[in-house]
Amino acid sequence: MKLIIAVIQDKDSNRLTDALSDHNYKTTKLSTTGGFLKEGNTTLMIGVEDHQVDDVLDVIRDNCSQRDQMVAPISPMGGNADSYIPKPVKVEVGGATVFVMPVESFFQF
Amino acid sequence: MKLIIAVIQDKDSNRLTDALSDHNYKTTKLSTTGGFLKEGNTTLMIGVEDHQVDDVLDVIRDNCSQRDQMVAPISPMGGNADSYIPKPVKVEVGGATVFVMPVESFFQF
Amino acid sequence: MKLIIAVIQDKDSNRLTDALSDHNYKTTKLSTTGGFLKEGNTTLMIGVEDHQVDDVLDVIRDNCSQRDQMVAPISPMGGNADSYIPKPVKVEVGGATVFVMPVESFFQF
Ligand code: NI
Ligand code: NI
Ligand code: NI
Repeated sequence: MKLIIAVIQDKDSNRLTDALSDHNYKTTKLSTTGGFLKEGNTTLMIGVEDHQVDDVLDVIRDNCSQRDQMVAPISPMGGNADSYIPKPVKVEVGGATVFVMPVESFFQF
Repeated sequence: MKLIIAVIQDKDSNRLTDALSDHNYKTTKLSTTGGFLKEGNTTLMIGVEDHQVDDVLDVIRDNCSQRDQMVAPISPMGGNADSYIPKPVKVEVGGATVFVMPVESFFQF
Repeated sequence: MKLIIAVIQDKDSNRLTDALSDHNYKTTKLSTTGGFLKEGNTTLMIGVEDHQVDDVLDVIRDNCSQRDQMVAPISPMGGNADSYIPKPVKVEVGGATVFVMPVESFFQF
């Protein structure tokens, strides 16, 4: 038995819990905020058998890996909105920090 | 030293923390939501000595075990409320998922 | 690799995360409430290399140790506010409960 603790971005949270649920893994979601990261993040706890760890890691990697995304920038305050042509900007999104923790014993009541 | 992580239903949360407090165990409550379970759930962290684990498990079992409960159903939308006699319905409530985690060292400042 | 779980008072939370960030430690903050403690508290998770544990413990001790603080008491309800001279009262604030947890494996995606 292992407890997998995964810190991910909020925006990846629903997709990951859906994907884990499709693989029959139950998740518990903790409300978290990062120290650095100003954007909200989410911590998931997933209790699994030892032989399931690699599969769960695959699902996390597939759904939360850090990647580039083109986003429309906010138009500059006070600028001439009519003549302003927003250029999409590349930003890094996603990413997951994952701890696999040993579990001494596990119970369901 | 062990860290007990218990995921329980919100409705059992106050009763369990009161019962643990009666047994002189301090709890830290994390706001959580389940991936499957649509109802809110709560995660408690309880730091205990090795010899206290069984007692804490007993308290959790006594206060959070899955059980049947009779609830009055919602009356059907648009039905004839006067002639509608609600029949209590049996639902499963409660339940606890408990991880006993090894702790390498423990400090209080 | 270790996962340090620190339960501290809300009022020490920003100072501690700033201090840990100055030391280049990333923290994840969980919203928590204590079972006993009526005031809100905060749980931080900090993933570190084994050789960094003592440094992190030092930073927590420096920023969150239990200490006395003089606070202005609330003036008594219904008392004569004009003649009432509030005397500062000594209260205990701060404190940290810290678990150092073994980590079996660690991943970043
Ligand atoms: Ni798969
Ligand atoms: Ni007892
Ligand atoms: Ni230092």
